[in-house]
Amino acid sequence: MDIRVVAFDIFGTTVDWYSGVADQVAQLLPDVDAGDFAQRWRDRYIPSMNRVRGRERDWAYLDTLHRESLDDLLRELDVEADDDTRDRLVRAWHKLPAWPDSVSGLARIRVRYTTAALSNGGFALLTRLVKGAALPFDCILSAELARTYKPDAAVYHTAAALLDVAPEQVLMVAAHEWDLDGARAAGLRTAFVSRPREKGPDRAADRPEDVEADLHTNSFLDLATQLDTP
Amino acid sequence: MDIRVVAFDIFGTTVDWYSGVADQVAQLLPDVDAGDFAQRWRDRYIPSMNRVRGRERDWAYLDTLHRESLDDLLRELDVEADDDTRDRLVRAWHKLPAWPDSVSGLARIRVRYTTAALSNGGFALLTRLVKGAALPFDCILSAELARTYKPDAAVYHTAAALLDVAPEQVLMVAAHEWDLDGARAAGLRTAFVSRPREKGPDRAADRPEDVEADLHTNSFLDLATQLDTP
Repeated sequence: MDIRVVAFDIFGTTVDWYSGVADQVAQLLPDVDAGDFAQRWRDRYIPSMNRVRGRERDWAYLDTLHRESLDDLLRELDVEADDDTRDRLVRAWHKLPAWPDSVSGLARIRVRYTTAALSNGGFALLTRLVKGAALPFDCILSAELARTYKPDAAVYHTAAALLDVAPEQVLMVAAHEWDLDGARAAGLRTAFVSRPREKGPDRAADRPEDVEADLHTNSFLDLATQLDTP
Repeated sequence: MDIRVVAFDIFGTTVDWYSGVADQVAQLLPDVDAGDFAQRWRDRYIPSMNRVRGRERDWAYLDTLHRESLDDLLRELDVEADDDTRDRLVRAWHKLPAWPDSVSGLARIRVRYTTAALSNGGFALLTRLVKGAALPFDCILSAELARTYKPDAAVYHTAAALLDVAPEQVLMVAAHEWDLDGARAAGLRTAFVSRPREKGPDRAADRPEDVEADLHTNSFLDLATQLDTP
């Protein structure tokens, strides 16, 4: 492999969305089961993006999709929340804790490779999230720059084009089979990182044995080692 | 002023293109006057971008414009250079030294504001340049994302939109009157930074008394202080 750029998925791969969102939910909606709420909210994520990918609707920011799916979920659970609370809940996705190995692993990988965030989160959301968690990326890339969502090939190709490399010179790192399948279909190299607690304590995350990838890793430090970084 | 984002021009404002390019020219074309060569090359910069801005030609990367103006300059000076040398000269613009106050000033400003590179350089060029000089930006923005060049309003508006702020919440920092005039016309706030050696020892840079701006500064540290950062 002739890798120049290592592109990282963010939600679940680099940061712990489950704990971060559940913590915010617990503070803002004290009467709901915060972990369950976070999971149900996230369940609406892929379907909401698929409506944009399938051109059922025009481009919409992830913040907009998060707000719509939040409104839907609150209605379903018959939970009251004012506009300000809903805005704050949407912004919970802007500030999430990194997994313990993310910062140190990225710092090693960055020595030898260009490191990029490549997420379905909007550019502004990602800039805030990366800054808040002090993640050492060389640049922020977002599906927003292609105005569609992963796993559309356009997102991966836009990332390679902006960094002036061929698709096969980009290694996509993700904890999700669907993302790696999309990256591989677009001609990228792939690295799976196992994040068994990604969906909280009660739900199974994607398992290494089920995922096809060029590299299988269990942390960003393991990935750094497999990539021969100091 | 309600500033959220501080956007920095790069060539001449954050890095010393004159010394960096002249050093590379001296190594690769030992028989030419390197400083004069760097200046003449840069003289072709604005006219070459104006042809894109004026739709006389389709979008072209800064690397492409640099290569064309290099070929033109070598022809004018009757200097021989093979293809590999020309490629290396174009890449001289990818690795340039920061001004002495750039890293420390940015580090202070970043504590309180989102810091962004906002240059006519391509996204890949800027990512390399920022990494090579260890400039602590929160994100890279490029005129490439708007597929035109500063001072077109679209470049400044694209930057504000990607960071989800209003134009007047962006402070554009530059050593060039034309850039700040463009930013102000697009509704941004402006800060002039005086870089008297920007064009080398023999040519005058833009002078503070000639430039209209919300803030006048003589370094990024001075800017950090005027912005009340710790």
